[in-house]
Amino acid sequence: MEQRQQRKLDHIRHALALADGPQTNGFEDVRLVPQALSGVDMNAIDLGCAFLGKRLRLPLLINAITGGTAQVTGINAALGRVARQAGVALAVGSQAAAIRDASLWPTYRVARQANPDGVLIANVNPNVAVADALRAIEAIEADGLQVHVNVAQELNMTEGDRDFHRWLDNIAAIVKASPVPVIVKEVGCGISAEVTARLLDAGVRYIDTGGAGGTNFVAIEQQRRQVPAVQTAQDAQTPSLLPADQAALMAWGLPTAVSLAEVLYAVRRFRREARSSTAVGQQEHLPAPGDDVHVIASGGVRGGFEVAKALVMGASLVAVAGEVLRYLLTPQGDWHESGEQAALDYLDRLQRGCATAMTMVGSGDIASLQRCPYVLTGATQAWLSQRGMN
Amino acid sequence: MEQRQQRKLDHIRHALALADGPQTNGFEDVRLVPQALSGVDMNAIDLGCAFLGKRLRLPLLINAITGGTAQVTGINAALGRVARQAGVALAVGSQAAAIRDASLWPTYRVARQANPDGVLIANVNPNVAVADALRAIEAIEADGLQVHVNVAQELNMTEGDRDFHRWLDNIAAIVKASPVPVIVKEVGCGISAEVTARLLDAGVRYIDTGGAGGTNFVAIEQQRRQVPAVQTAQDAQTPSLLPADQAALMAWGLPTAVSLAEVLYAVRRFRREARSSTAVGQQEHLPAPGDDVHVIASGGVRGGFEVAKALVMGASLVAVAGEVLRYLLTPQGDWHESGEQAALDYLDRLQRGCATAMTMVGSGDIASLQRCPYVLTGATQAWLSQRGMN
Amino acid sequence: MEQRQQRKLDHIRHALALADGPQTNGFEDVRLVPQALSGVDMNAIDLGCAFLGKRLRLPLLINAITGGTAQVTGINAALGRVARQAGVALAVGSQAAAIRDASLWPTYRVARQANPDGVLIANVNPNVAVADALRAIEAIEADGLQVHVNVAQELNMTEGDRDFHRWLDNIAAIVKASPVPVIVKEVGCGISAEVTARLLDAGVRYIDTGGAGGTNFVAIEQQRRQVPAVQTAQDAQTPSLLPADQAALMAWGLPTAVSLAEVLYAVRRFRREARSSTAVGQQEHLPAPGDDVHVIASGGVRGGFEVAKALVMGASLVAVAGEVLRYLLTPQGDWHESGEQAALDYLDRLQRGCATAMTMVGSGDIASLQRCPYVLTGATQAWLSQRGMN
Amino acid sequence: MEQRQQRKLDHIRHALALADGPQTNGFEDVRLVPQALSGVDMNAIDLGCAFLGKRLRLPLLINAITGGTAQVTGINAALGRVARQAGVALAVGSQAAAIRDASLWPTYRVARQANPDGVLIANVNPNVAVADALRAIEAIEADGLQVHVNVAQELNMTEGDRDFHRWLDNIAAIVKASPVPVIVKEVGCGISAEVTARLLDAGVRYIDTGGAGGTNFVAIEQQRRQVPAVQTAQDAQTPSLLPADQAALMAWGLPTAVSLAEVLYAVRRFRREARSSTAVGQQEHLPAPGDDVHVIASGGVRGGFEVAKALVMGASLVAVAGEVLRYLLTPQGDWHESGEQAALDYLDRLQRGCATAMTMVGSGDIASLQRCPYVLTGATQAWLSQRGMN
Ligand SMILES: Cc1cc2nc3c(=O)[nH]c(=O)nc-3n(C[C@H](O)[C@H](O)[C@H](O)COP(=O)(O)O)c2cc1C
Ligand SMILES: Cc1cc2nc3c(=O)[nH]c(=O)nc-3n(C[C@H](O)[C@H](O)[C@H](O)COP(=O)(O)O)c2cc1C
Ligand SMILES: Cc1cc2nc3c(=O)[nH]c(=O)nc-3n(C[C@H](O)[C@H](O)[C@H](O)COP(=O)(O)O)c2cc1C
Ligand SMILES: Cc1cc2nc3c(=O)[nH]c(=O)nc-3n(C[C@H](O)[C@H](O)[C@H](O)COP(=O)(O)O)c2cc1C
Repeated sequence: MEQRQQRKLDHIRHALALADGPQTNGFEDVRLVPQALSGVDMNAIDLGCAFLGKRLRLPLLINAITGGTAQVTGINAALGRVARQAGVALAVGSQAAAIRDASLWPTYRVARQANPDGVLIANVNPNVAVADALRAIEAIEADGLQVHVNVAQELNMTEGDRDFHRWLDNIAAIVKASPVPVIVKEVGCGISAEVTARLLDAGVRYIDTGGAGGTNFVAIEQQRRQVPAVQTAQDAQTPSLLPADQAALMAWGLPTAVSLAEVLYAVRRFRREARSSTAVGQQEHLPAPGDDVHVIASGGVRGGFEVAKALVMGASLVAVAGEVLRYLLTPQGDWHESGEQAALDYLDRLQRGCATAMTMVGSGDIASLQRCPYVLTGATQAWLSQRGMN
Repeated sequence: MEQRQQRKLDHIRHALALADGPQTNGFEDVRLVPQALSGVDMNAIDLGCAFLGKRLRLPLLINAITGGTAQVTGINAALGRVARQAGVALAVGSQAAAIRDASLWPTYRVARQANPDGVLIANVNPNVAVADALRAIEAIEADGLQVHVNVAQELNMTEGDRDFHRWLDNIAAIVKASPVPVIVKEVGCGISAEVTARLLDAGVRYIDTGGAGGTNFVAIEQQRRQVPAVQTAQDAQTPSLLPADQAALMAWGLPTAVSLAEVLYAVRRFRREARSSTAVGQQEHLPAPGDDVHVIASGGVRGGFEVAKALVMGASLVAVAGEVLRYLLTPQGDWHESGEQAALDYLDRLQRGCATAMTMVGSGDIASLQRCPYVLTGATQAWLSQRGMN
Repeated sequence: MEQRQQRKLDHIRHALALADGPQTNGFEDVRLVPQALSGVDMNAIDLGCAFLGKRLRLPLLINAITGGTAQVTGINAALGRVARQAGVALAVGSQAAAIRDASLWPTYRVARQANPDGVLIANVNPNVAVADALRAIEAIEADGLQVHVNVAQELNMTEGDRDFHRWLDNIAAIVKASPVPVIVKEVGCGISAEVTARLLDAGVRYIDTGGAGGTNFVAIEQQRRQVPAVQTAQDAQTPSLLPADQAALMAWGLPTAVSLAEVLYAVRRFRREARSSTAVGQQEHLPAPGDDVHVIASGGVRGGFEVAKALVMGASLVAVAGEVLRYLLTPQGDWHESGEQAALDYLDRLQRGCATAMTMVGSGDIASLQRCPYVLTGATQAWLSQRGMN
Repeated sequence: MEQRQQRKLDHIRHALALADGPQTNGFEDVRLVPQALSGVDMNAIDLGCAFLGKRLRLPLLINAITGGTAQVTGINAALGRVARQAGVALAVGSQAAAIRDASLWPTYRVARQANPDGVLIANVNPNVAVADALRAIEAIEADGLQVHVNVAQELNMTEGDRDFHRWLDNIAAIVKASPVPVIVKEVGCGISAEVTARLLDAGVRYIDTGGAGGTNFVAIEQQRRQVPAVQTAQDAQTPSLLPADQAALMAWGLPTAVSLAEVLYAVRRFRREARSSTAVGQQEHLPAPGDDVHVIASGGVRGGFEVAKALVMGASLVAVAGEVLRYLLTPQGDWHESGEQAALDYLDRLQRGCATAMTMVGSGDIASLQRCPYVLTGATQAWLSQRGMN
């Protein structure tokens, strides 16, 4: 098996085996304000929303997980069926493998076959050539294209990238060429306000926080190095980091709630600037209106209360990856008979949790939820206050 | 036994069995300022006050607990005698059962018989028809009417309500029709500033915080579902919430001290607005003057220091439910010989605790207590500061 | 033995047996700023200061402990010798016993005999008749008179006072009549800013914080009630407080550092007002100039770093009671051969600790120490910030 | 063996044996802001910088450790070789021994012999005569001269200094006479803003924080007193401090991150004043331009993330002492075969850790790193905010 293909299976296996942390997703610091009169009929709550030109029944995305090797084709097909039945969006895993080896496209395409009318999103890394990005979209008739940025993960892979200086320019080029919207996402370390500003300037209009508190790729890669399935000569040579640095790296990243607040802060600034420059008539080279920016909250989301909190803070959508896998597969990462139903039940309970929270804060739909008061506490509040973003 | 009647007994049994929490009532964050000179004669301390047109010896209400089934009639009679002897107010439990089945009125009426001249309060849910609310008042010659709002509890009962959109209008209608003042109360999740504003606009002039930190109905209903006395078909079908959401629900609610501060904040705003609109002469459709608003602090109150703290913060009255039960009944919820005396002793020690605190902050009566300085700390201070209410 | 006399021995025994707390003295929140260049010759450090018209070698007072029964006469004599040799001030314990029974004056007078030229301070309660206060002074040729206020202690003694309404007036009368300065002191619950303002208005110019964190009389009296040496009929009748209130009472009181900051805050305000009223020429009914106010920091002081911190904050003197006893007597409260030397050694090490701290913050004398920067942190900082006193 | 020589070995042995603490270096409170796009080619990261007129490959100094006795000559030679190979600066230990006994100069000179072209720094105490300081420089052809201030350590040595009143003047005299720049350094208790201001006024332009969190000389000296290698008559006589004071002393000192912020705060003020006084033309008696001030962060630094944090905060260089020893020697302080290689590997991993952090915050060189945003949290933030330095 090729190293890259083995990695896919390793990631799944280790993601399932690892406990979360050391950081939390920060949503415990985001407090909703109980509204004792409610005013809502819970059974009438509408969580439907538009996303990438289609309707979702839930403001939810099953985030990029897999593809690129025969063993995971079944997973992508299953995720496609789950997404269709639950009415949520789905992203396939990194399509880099198929870009290298065209025989692997079907391992992604099954997701589209299982869900012909749903929202399906392609996924590439930020080193990919523009033409290859377009092929990734085409291959699954994607409604959008995710570009994942994952510096910490790369630095923790023996075989990972070390040179990131072309990423932003390449993303800008992809945005220009892409027939569908481009979503830039982290994979567990979060997007900061500064990065958001640069992405917006580069024309990106969809940002997925991919914050810390859930799947931790630093931990996963460390596990992989300790129990490597394919031993490489490089492994032995890699001088490991000092214990203090290793610990710092494990805890690296903006918790999802912090990242979400940072991204939204930068988006609000961007919108203000967009409006004020419109005001003075410089219509021409204007970016697309700021109101078209969409923020996806992800990283360690597990329950419906967290979904509600993310929406209250201003997210348009919430994404989950690791937690869906835990319902779909066995703890060892193997296929299991009723996994698909379990994943569907999971999404159903997630919806119920979100609706419960909405009822208790008196919001019958997403728009009303986004006007709800909330309170920031603890480390999240302290961080944002020090950053001047509260 | 009817489901609703069995529920009464279940509630009592589980309320006694459950430990408090996970939240505290927040009064540990409210710090009194020792006044070493005192200036008070503790034996001359007067805790008497007016409530609903009558005199109380203590600013205390034994809050709504029970009624509606033969087995609890003795409890209501005992509470009536205790309230009379201690000179405190008493609310009966929800009278919905008797509204459905008129044979049950006597299970509430015993409280009035035991305490003909005391302050007795009727209790209904916010779905009740106006006419039924009036019957509930009449049935016990009530001095006031409690309407309990309990969204979290309902959502945790398989048989509970899911539709809350009519509550506020119905409360407004009851207020208009009621010959006695209407008290809106939560049952353990607290009233926020926003809800207070709406209630005041709807004409409500008595608000009982019913905050978190004491009896936790989410926990109680969960216990009931795990050990259901009456197994229903519904039980099995109910898709339970995700673990993360279940935990969020258990810790839902504003701690009593927080809720008290929120309610008082909204009341002060309301009073200011009432005054300023009077100033410009719009006398006619004015709500009753803001100074007639009364705030009752309840939820997890156990001792006299907490009573003193609630009064210092601005409450007019304090209410206890669960703690009285713990003295009146055995830990298993059974009748016990000297329970009535134990409950009386409890109230006596509560008074003594309050008087001790008053002596140490140099206040001889409630009016003086309400001018005492106090300090907010910890999570309560942080919350209120984030809410802009400090 | 009379109840009051037995109490003296009980207090000593229990004070020695009890661990500190539950509160700390708060000095852990007061942080000195290391000054790496020092600039000080530690061996030349001068801790001498004036107090009550005499010179002390250390800014230290051995606070009121005992007297009034034959068994403790030896303690007062020993303390007198220790104070003389160490060059510190000494206060005798409450002289109420001798006021009632003139045969007991010698149990206090031994302290003066042992230390004819030192600073010796009389001690009475605030109920004492003016004439009796004068006798207490005379009896030991006192340089000053302490009036102790101890509401929490009284309320915890079955035989204690309950009526405190005359205290302030009586203190004012004593101040007027006394030929020596009057010191008002708490005994472990601290003096607040409000109390300070009243005492200053009543003409008091010496205030001893007596804050929480050391000897805890609520705990002592509780121990005494549990293991009463003299069983009284009252004991059985006393309805004890509720557990929640008992816990609140145990933790009652301003920690010493907090109380010190509160007292100094009120003193600074008083000085400003004194000055500004002088400015507009209302010379006549002016209180003695504010600069003559002296603040003594006490309550749980154990080491020399705490002494330094109190002086940095603005105290003129520091007092210790419980800790001196621990060196003078055996843990059981019995006499012990080398106790006097141990107490002297203790004071020597206290001085050394203070001088060490002074060297490290670069202060060679008390005046320079009082200009040192310091940092408030933790609960002490939070309290003072909420009180608007930082 | 002379007492001073034995002390050298004791210090090494105890430094290796002691765990860090009780304070941390504070860098856990300094949070970098992840920049998900990076923009950096990690392999091209340049950590080179100028220091004392020469080039370093890393902004790192192996801080003053030893010399002055034959047994440690090998250590100085080894450190010299390590410094040369790694391209970092090196300071020898205190040269006081050689100043007293000229036969000991070679124990320091080996470091220069091992590293003829590198940055080597002499080290003296602040009591040393100016002429002796110059001899110390000459003896190793030093590029700079460290003067260590270590009040807490001296006070904890039975044989230590007690008189520090001449230090500042002597440092000023040394600065005037020295042909090379003078670095004033603490050895584990940190430099405050006030001390920084005085040093800048005295003409010092290099300050090394030497903060708390790493090697703790109070703890080391205490260990030495408990297990003294050379028993002296003085040992028995030394009256030890009270337990409370001993604990305060153990935790004395500004954590490195706090000290770094304090020093930099004072440096910024100094620069502002320097500029504004230039503006009005008082060119003559001006101190060297403020921009020539260099701040070295040291005390408990272990990993590369800490190096990066120190640089982000504004340090020019970072120094390590204790941690290098742990790689160079056995845990018992003995020579070990591969120690030199281990120390080199350590520096390599430190560089890698720093480069990893730089990549993840998107900085390719030190200048860019120093413009990175960072967030202060916890006790460090609270301290600086109370000091008005945030
Ligand atoms: C097994 C596994 C494989 C993943 N593969 C990809 C991938 O190929 N591309 C990508 O953008 N993200 C990938 N992710 C990251 C997720 O999309 C998501 O950003 C991250 O797991 C954080 O979300 P979570 O905490 O909900 O898992 C993967 C995650 C897991 C658990
Ligand atoms: C056994 C039990 C039954 C209760 N029944 C009612 C009720 O019927 N109506 C109502 O308004 N509140 C009811 N409550 C709620 C109490 O009135 C009160 O709001 C709540 O228990 C919080 O106060 P506590 O912490 O002092 O118990 C009940 C409480 C208990 C413990
Ligand atoms: C055994 C004992 C007896 C005391 N008796 C008196 C007293 O008679 N009068 C008084 O003003 N304070 C008395 N005190 C209180 C002390 O003067 C002091 O205010 C208190 O103990 C707090 O200081 P500390 O923590 O250093 O002990 C007594 C303290 C102790 C330990
Ligand atoms: C064994 C040992 C000996 C030391 N000797 C000296 C010395 O002679 N002169 C000096 O200025 N600092 C000396 N130091 C202090 C270090 O230079 C440094 O300031 C201190 O150890 C804090 O840094 P660290 O936490 O990285 O060890 C010594 C440190 C150690 C561990």
